[in-house]
Amino acid sequence: MDGMNVSDIIKAALAEDIGHGDVTTGACVDPDAEGTAVVIAKEGFILAGYEVFLEVFLTLDPSVDFSVNRVDGERVKKGEVIMELAGPLATLLTGERVALNLMQRMSGIATLTDKYVRAVSGTNARILDTRKTTPGLRVLEKYAVTVGGGYNHRFGLSDGILIKDNHIAAAGGIAAAVIAAREYTPHTLRIEVECETLDDVKAALGAGVEIIMLDNMDVATMKKAVKLIGDSALVEASGNMTLKHAAEAAKTGVDLISVGALTHSAPAVDISMKIM
Amino acid sequence: MDGMNVSDIIKAALAEDIGHGDVTTGACVDPDAEGTAVVIAKEGFILAGYEVFLEVFLTLDPSVDFSVNRVDGERVKKGEVIMELAGPLATLLTGERVALNLMQRMSGIATLTDKYVRAVSGTNARILDTRKTTPGLRVLEKYAVTVGGGYNHRFGLSDGILIKDNHIAAAGGIAAAVIAAREYTPHTLRIEVECETLDDVKAALGAGVEIIMLDNMDVATMKKAVKLIGDSALVEASGNMTLKHAAEAAKTGVDLISVGALTHSAPAVDISMKIM
Amino acid sequence: MDGMNVSDIIKAALAEDIGHGDVTTGACVDPDAEGTAVVIAKEGFILAGYEVFLEVFLTLDPSVDFSVNRVDGERVKKGEVIMELAGPLATLLTGERVALNLMQRMSGIATLTDKYVRAVSGTNARILDTRKTTPGLRVLEKYAVTVGGGYNHRFGLSDGILIKDNHIAAAGGIAAAVIAAREYTPHTLRIEVECETLDDVKAALGAGVEIIMLDNMDVATMKKAVKLIGDSALVEASGNMTLKHAAEAAKTGVDLISVGALTHSAPAVDISMKIM
Amino acid sequence: MDGMNVSDIIKAALAEDIGHGDVTTGACVDPDAEGTAVVIAKEGFILAGYEVFLEVFLTLDPSVDFSVNRVDGERVKKGEVIMELAGPLATLLTGERVALNLMQRMSGIATLTDKYVRAVSGTNARILDTRKTTPGLRVLEKYAVTVGGGYNHRFGLSDGILIKDNHIAAAGGIAAAVIAAREYTPHTLRIEVECETLDDVKAALGAGVEIIMLDNMDVATMKKAVKLIGDSALVEASGNMTLKHAAEAAKTGVDLISVGALTHSAPAVDISMKIM
Amino acid sequence: MDGMNVSDIIKAALAEDIGHGDVTTGACVDPDAEGTAVVIAKEGFILAGYEVFLEVFLTLDPSVDFSVNRVDGERVKKGEVIMELAGPLATLLTGERVALNLMQRMSGIATLTDKYVRAVSGTNARILDTRKTTPGLRVLEKYAVTVGGGYNHRFGLSDGILIKDNHIAAAGGIAAAVIAAREYTPHTLRIEVECETLDDVKAALGAGVEIIMLDNMDVATMKKAVKLIGDSALVEASGNMTLKHAAEAAKTGVDLISVGALTHSAPAVDISMKIM
Amino acid sequence: MDGMNVSDIIKAALAEDIGHGDVTTGACVDPDAEGTAVVIAKEGFILAGYEVFLEVFLTLDPSVDFSVNRVDGERVKKGEVIMELAGPLATLLTGERVALNLMQRMSGIATLTDKYVRAVSGTNARILDTRKTTPGLRVLEKYAVTVGGGYNHRFGLSDGILIKDNHIAAAGGIAAAVIAAREYTPHTLRIEVECETLDDVKAALGAGVEIIMLDNMDVATMKKAVKLIGDSALVEASGNMTLKHAAEAAKTGVDLISVGALTHSAPAVDISMKIM
Repeated sequence: MDGMNVSDIIKAALAEDIGHGDVTTGACVDPDAEGTAVVIAKEGFILAGYEVFLEVFLTLDPSVDFSVNRVDGERVKKGEVIMELAGPLATLLTGERVALNLMQRMSGIATLTDKYVRAVSGTNARILDTRKTTPGLRVLEKYAVTVGGGYNHRFGLSDGILIKDNHIAAAGGIAAAVIAAREYTPHTLRIEVECETLDDVKAALGAGVEIIMLDNMDVATMKKAVKLIGDSALVEASGNMTLKHAAEAAKTGVDLISVGALTHSAPAVDISMKIM
Repeated sequence: MDGMNVSDIIKAALAEDIGHGDVTTGACVDPDAEGTAVVIAKEGFILAGYEVFLEVFLTLDPSVDFSVNRVDGERVKKGEVIMELAGPLATLLTGERVALNLMQRMSGIATLTDKYVRAVSGTNARILDTRKTTPGLRVLEKYAVTVGGGYNHRFGLSDGILIKDNHIAAAGGIAAAVIAAREYTPHTLRIEVECETLDDVKAALGAGVEIIMLDNMDVATMKKAVKLIGDSALVEASGNMTLKHAAEAAKTGVDLISVGALTHSAPAVDISMKIM
Repeated sequence: MDGMNVSDIIKAALAEDIGHGDVTTGACVDPDAEGTAVVIAKEGFILAGYEVFLEVFLTLDPSVDFSVNRVDGERVKKGEVIMELAGPLATLLTGERVALNLMQRMSGIATLTDKYVRAVSGTNARILDTRKTTPGLRVLEKYAVTVGGGYNHRFGLSDGILIKDNHIAAAGGIAAAVIAAREYTPHTLRIEVECETLDDVKAALGAGVEIIMLDNMDVATMKKAVKLIGDSALVEASGNMTLKHAAEAAKTGVDLISVGALTHSAPAVDISMKIM
Repeated sequence: MDGMNVSDIIKAALAEDIGHGDVTTGACVDPDAEGTAVVIAKEGFILAGYEVFLEVFLTLDPSVDFSVNRVDGERVKKGEVIMELAGPLATLLTGERVALNLMQRMSGIATLTDKYVRAVSGTNARILDTRKTTPGLRVLEKYAVTVGGGYNHRFGLSDGILIKDNHIAAAGGIAAAVIAAREYTPHTLRIEVECETLDDVKAALGAGVEIIMLDNMDVATMKKAVKLIGDSALVEASGNMTLKHAAEAAKTGVDLISVGALTHSAPAVDISMKIM
Repeated sequence: MDGMNVSDIIKAALAEDIGHGDVTTGACVDPDAEGTAVVIAKEGFILAGYEVFLEVFLTLDPSVDFSVNRVDGERVKKGEVIMELAGPLATLLTGERVALNLMQRMSGIATLTDKYVRAVSGTNARILDTRKTTPGLRVLEKYAVTVGGGYNHRFGLSDGILIKDNHIAAAGGIAAAVIAAREYTPHTLRIEVECETLDDVKAALGAGVEIIMLDNMDVATMKKAVKLIGDSALVEASGNMTLKHAAEAAKTGVDLISVGALTHSAPAVDISMKIM
Repeated sequence: MDGMNVSDIIKAALAEDIGHGDVTTGACVDPDAEGTAVVIAKEGFILAGYEVFLEVFLTLDPSVDFSVNRVDGERVKKGEVIMELAGPLATLLTGERVALNLMQRMSGIATLTDKYVRAVSGTNARILDTRKTTPGLRVLEKYAVTVGGGYNHRFGLSDGILIKDNHIAAAGGIAAAVIAAREYTPHTLRIEVECETLDDVKAALGAGVEIIMLDNMDVATMKKAVKLIGDSALVEASGNMTLKHAAEAAKTGVDLISVGALTHSAPAVDISMKIM
């Protein structure tokens, strides 16, 4: 995670939630009162984002103190205390919701990723994220995927080449598109082409691409594609990857399985923060 | 939705995704090529966010043209064409992912809200959102809740008073907290108190609050609380509201049912954009 | 006051004043020279904003040291030393004007508010501010009103409902406007309606609003309105509130008196900062 | 006025006032309803800021139409219609307060400046503003001073040299301070020195400064200083300039009279906007 | 070039130069006066940045009109008219310096790049830029390199893997560093390793890297390295690349030659803008 | 240098270079590993910007430690160690390029300025910079000029009056332009007029300007102009100032010589940072 970027996300989230001030806390809580809080798992999950959680409070008041029992990547159980905080009571109350919103979402993503990783265990396939992330939170969500044992696909449009059907059509075929990409883009990027049929795969191989994405292929076709490609390129399977479909795809020998649901549909996990 | 705010969300989302440039499109697509695209529902759902979807492309290039078949709040069926776009092909390709990420999420929220609204139909209860929204996207997500037939709770900490257990403890009891809130906060805000027991409810009534939140009460206790409160205050039920629990709670006569899952756990709906 | 917001105001004010650098101080003052300064009241007033004053210097250099003799809300006399600062001489000189501009304005508002509060003493009326604040400084100016013993009206358009004549006309009458507001806005907000006549007041009462604003009414009509309303709603008097008119209005039994002049026309008080 | 700067001021002011949305207007006004409004002077004053007023509405919606009867610098009478607007009714209602806040303040400054200009008429003295402006609004307030017939002093610390007592002390005397300024600062800036006594004036003349500020001098001493200086430097009088004191100072022959009250204590003028 | 990014660069550059206003133009030029200008090459060079040049004026005033004689990548001769502009005279004068500063720098880079490209003509070597760009202007400078016939290396630290000596030392050798990179970074990125000796090259080949950078090697060693590598990886030569050294390096058969001087030391070309 | 401004430049430069993260360092370097680095001159030059260099690392991590051997304005020799840093190894690697880019450019400017200063030594002429700076970096580049012994011309369009041919034409002659400037601009600014002929010089003298710029005059004409002007105004020579031409111009007796090349064409000096 890029620290400066995360800091901006937190500041914006606090501004969004606090508006011109937390009126309830302002009314009820002595600004000099101190408090302590425990953060408790209300269900079992893979923890992700505890540092972001803490950073929310430290952004409000750098004097907040804390002790951490569990760190990112660990499997926490229902009822476990993840960490404890101590500091101005008003700060603990004002920051609670934003901190939880972030860590619950990130842990939800790590937990779902972990399920996919376990679904493909015993194969060589890596679970990948996609660009189907929450606008504004990509850096956190892609980090949460790695916490859950997954891997990151390209971050955005500028750090990876993924030639899709429309690019192919615009360029005049797979070969032409690949030539254009070699000419236009930095040599530091591999070229990946999205293929819907075995003919596409053959064309991509002919163009010498380094990665072939099998888009929405059934398992039988996938197997043939994997065989066809051999060691000539990395193979990524993509498209409506349920846990079951991912497990089947993994067994075909693909190297990579990308799953949009990791970030667009992971339910938040349940965490609570109790003032003691 | 506040237009200036939405415009900033879109710009930030595009910057996040595009980085220093869409290299694949830059390589493969003639900058002068024009294209058209159709946006298709891949499943049935309640549409929300079509204007945001369009605004993404208009932010990249104000010359993009469009025709709209379906608007927010309508139930679209699998296979339906939601809208069509025409403009520079490169713009259509570069903006696609961000536009879909936003509309898929918003429609997911509207669709889940609609389920809750139907679950409580025939009662007087309104379905409410919470502050458990995605950091940075609250304005869009709260809008999507209204599209789905729900109502908004306070936007953030500055435009509503919600006195919770910690505030009560800090102020020295419900009565003291309510007095402090009346003294400190604008007279334009109602006072809501979170109650966990019937004794809490009695204390809140004694303090003359305008809204009582029944927090994590079982249905039997809820019924007693509703009876106790009568017309003296609005009653909000809250806490782990599954569809089933919401339906039961609604029948107790509460006025409002708040559901965090509307925004923190709604799965994205499936929409695709096809270049023609 | 929301700390992050205030910090942005201070940074912007310093950028505005300093431009690309304080050339006079740069020329004349050794960057390593230390200095001390006293801040002196040049007239009597209610102090507001000493923390903002200090924050200006701390923004330029966190090493600036200070001791405070007087805090917000205290009545200072001509010639009194409000606080003392010690730190890099260049920092003291460069920050002086911005710091004074802010504290002089805030203290001016607190001092004028105090006059209104004293004018209505012995009645139940609270003195309120309005949205007639200096663009960009609302958070500071509304805080200064509370320092002077006043109360805040809604902060802005999103955290309060105030139905005015144009809203009533657009909605098709008071009753329709109130119904629309109940449907559209969060339940956490009370509904206030601006009334120019006793008939308006009756209509507002009929619609069950929680706050009635008597707009530009003469004292006699105001009295009738107060009687008519009784305990059914809070009553706010508004419109060209001189000190004398406010005193008269207060005696009619209104609950709230809003005064635009508190923030749009309070003269700055005179404070100086002397380097020792 | 620097257009980009003004545009930022307006956007920030709207964000401050609108927050996450104008809930009253959202509830009561059909988004498609059109309206017209007239802007009326409720007292006599010098108009300043009509373009800023319009820009507020155009920022919300570029389709707002208008016709202008009176422009900056004109003396408007009580009851006069300054301009008319036509556009979406919701936009007119949402932008009204911010637009008025800005134009009322600017016109207040122009009107007070005009009083000072008339007080010194028949002399050669120019009325100047100071850096005692509202933080964040300096560009608008300095413009308003020129609309009222006044002149601008330096904008901030980087575009003018004003050597004050503390600079002199730090540099080791007036001569040393002036030499340092000549060495350190661009040759495009004149050097001004603040003098409290006739001895100071002599030292400043000896150092060859181009502008001498007579700080808080009584009229008799001022006269002597003016005589002493002759044509060797421009002379600025400063310090607690009431209208009466300004008139007296002007008669001593000073070239410039700077008046902090123009911007720190000008009361807002009364303007209203009526929807027709 | 990413349009939104370029627009921010231009706005910042104008704010930096204009400050609170162009006082000379404000004083001397009637705001309603129109003017025309021609942009003339004062020496021969490769043009780059004419669109940025125009965008500066369009940012100040969208009504500025223009006709373009020469576009990016063309070789212009001394005395040629590159384009003509028409619009408000004040806008032409105020924008001139910023517009020229940008286009002169960009054309300087394109012109120097062209010299390197011609120096290696007849070989297969591509001329590459580096990250030694002007902070804040990378997107423009990398674009200018392509205009001059060069190619872009990675944009920044997030879109390319370049394992240098310190990374190797930290990871515990070339093989370990490459394994770590395969594990940690997106599969869309190729891995490049910086090699100072032939032994380094062998280790890199053994680790299966896709690109080998020969860092500061003499021509003889470079030749051996190229032979050693064959088709197993792309070869980049780097380090103090004068035109002469680049020509020699190109003849060794390297694929890529990166030249920091393209962006850190290209002198600006001489262009003038004449108001007619 | 304005500290807040410099801090923004550094943050933007880091964001530009780091993007969403330094993937190579992230892969290869243990986040807890510490390292030390020496910064070495690879050629002789005048050092400028060592504080900016350090600030880059401190922005990434305030715990970075350092010791400084050489400060701005000193002449360093090839091979000298300028400073040493110690801190997290990852921070040292990630910040290296941005820090070097800034200090190499600033030192390049100081070094070139020093050459000009030495070329005019023995005369009274000062070497000045211009507004031909790198967009976004003006504050750093103008500072580097002073480090090299030069002086700053106006920072931008708002803190100096420079009446050029187009302003003269627009105003209707030199006299009219000067009168307009005296009326419109703060009295704290001197008036400078650009003259191309001796007749222009005479007109400028007649108008009583304080500074006369001799624009692109040959040395013989320059001499005549200097004689004509005498002590009536400061004289600045400008236009294609090579080192040789500057030396000749200086001998004519001009006070100031402005050199665009100082900032638009100074080659970066060669500095390296070695991790130990």
